[in-house]
Amino acid sequence: MRYDCIIIGSGPAGLSAAINLKIYNKQFLWFGASNFSEKVQKAEDIQNYPGLPQISGKDLAEAFTKHKEAMGLEITDKIVSTIYDMGGYYNVMAENEFYETNSILFAVGVVPANQYVGEAEYVGRGVSYCATCDGMLYRGKKIAVVSTAKRFEHEIKFLADLAEKVYLFPFYKDCEITGDNVEIKKTAVKEVQGGFRVEKLLLGDGSELNVDGVFIMRNAIAPTTLLAGLAVEDGHIVVDRKAQTNLPGVFAAGDCTGKPYQYAKAVGEGNVAAHSIIEYLGDK
Amino acid sequence: MRYDCIIIGSGPAGLSAAINLKIYNKQFLWFGASNFSEKVQKAEDIQNYPGLPQISGKDLAEAFTKHKEAMGLEITDKIVSTIYDMGGYYNVMAENEFYETNSILFAVGVVPANQYVGEAEYVGRGVSYCATCDGMLYRGKKIAVVSTAKRFEHEIKFLADLAEKVYLFPFYKDCEITGDNVEIKKTAVKEVQGGFRVEKLLLGDGSELNVDGVFIMRNAIAPTTLLAGLAVEDGHIVVDRKAQTNLPGVFAAGDCTGKPYQYAKAVGEGNVAAHSIIEYLGDK
Repeated sequence: MRYDCIIIGSGPAGLSAAINLKIYNKQFLWFGASNFSEKVQKAEDIQNYPGLPQISGKDLAEAFTKHKEAMGLEITDKIVSTIYDMGGYYNVMAENEFYETNSILFAVGVVPANQYVGEAEYVGRGVSYCATCDGMLYRGKKIAVVSTAKRFEHEIKFLADLAEKVYLFPFYKDCEITGDNVEIKKTAVKEVQGGFRVEKLLLGDGSELNVDGVFIMRNAIAPTTLLAGLAVEDGHIVVDRKAQTNLPGVFAAGDCTGKPYQYAKAVGEGNVAAHSIIEYLGDK
Repeated sequence: MRYDCIIIGSGPAGLSAAINLKIYNKQFLWFGASNFSEKVQKAEDIQNYPGLPQISGKDLAEAFTKHKEAMGLEITDKIVSTIYDMGGYYNVMAENEFYETNSILFAVGVVPANQYVGEAEYVGRGVSYCATCDGMLYRGKKIAVVSTAKRFEHEIKFLADLAEKVYLFPFYKDCEITGDNVEIKKTAVKEVQGGFRVEKLLLGDGSELNVDGVFIMRNAIAPTTLLAGLAVEDGHIVVDRKAQTNLPGVFAAGDCTGKPYQYAKAVGEGNVAAHSIIEYLGDK
């Protein structure tokens, strides 16, 4: 099936959009953390969310959760690794599965700028965020895999079955990956280097590691990395007043579109985006 | 004194902005209906204000009122009739008093398009919305006064003391204006007519009334009528993503900036506008 929309991100912007798409009976998937945006949970007292004076981040997350449940909304706890523009619709890859959709809403919040030196430069030429998409290219080769969470272990196993050698950098506790061809590394990663394609990793201890490719598994991937051609400015997705990006059927709302980073702004933009999406689907 | 900002309108956009200006300790006045926006009060169940699922308009207005009180905010229940651009700051006239301000936020909602034929054409040439501003021009002359609310009676009395003759069209109950020179009319008003200046009113019963000027007292005045030069498109104030209008120091938020007409959008834009105003005042 092809969805009407896929929402990426479960903060206030994503929620606001999801509520409105649901009201309009749209078929959509909502990817995000099922316990709601961690950023909301951890917020100090919030004074300026109109209608809920002086509320703690925990209580606001609870109010959002109640609203989510009252509307029968479900969050799919998967991480989107790549989006393909199919010309007229999109193919969204999330943890080994493809989902077709007519429109996309980025409500991904502010993605921390924690890329390695050289990482962006080598995307598509040795740097990958998606084992399922690109794993086959590294059959019998040497790769490095950087992972920030246990949830990526099934993808890492898939890679270990293919590659000749896996240098694994597990930046999380209780790594359970083993295998003759897997070497666990405890060093920090500093830089991706190479010629036209990736050739090696520069590590924190000054040593180098020769590899044919680098898989990087993070909880948050920059939207431009997810979807080629998406216009950004100063790290924010460029949108107009209707929440439209430069790509047809692709919308953005909340912190990822720029300052002020505020709950009220996020729910407002999520609402506007949903209405623009409904209009876009109607025209289609 | 000169205020940092004057907010016009007490719907969700005005509230959201007021909360944020208060947090930043700005000196501002907030004009509107002290019982909150009537439109909020009268709304049916609202499903899509994130955090307050399935809430009635009455309950949402109550939640907004609580927030207003928790922040120590006060609404000044006066109707703004004219704004003068003083070059660098603004002079706002509200019920016989002038207020100086460095910035203005329009959060006036959707102003019903209920102007009379010819009304807009004759603004400044016989049509006025402000007794105090223009009353003196009609000393010893014949004027019509159209009023939609009792609150304007003190202005009408002021006009009756000046004019030779006042034809009063009171579209409200219990009109208490009397005077030898005041003639109460029960007919509907259809059209403002004249040459270069206003010369007569065309009435609902087909009759004509020769007058030198027409004062129109309504609860809501279109923003373009309030402030000359403000850019509008399809009846909405034109703003960018920072809620800035085409005039320096003038911002707009909520329904008056266009669809979708939604609480979430309104609070979002009010928040953005406040942050832009704070930035504008800082640069000034």
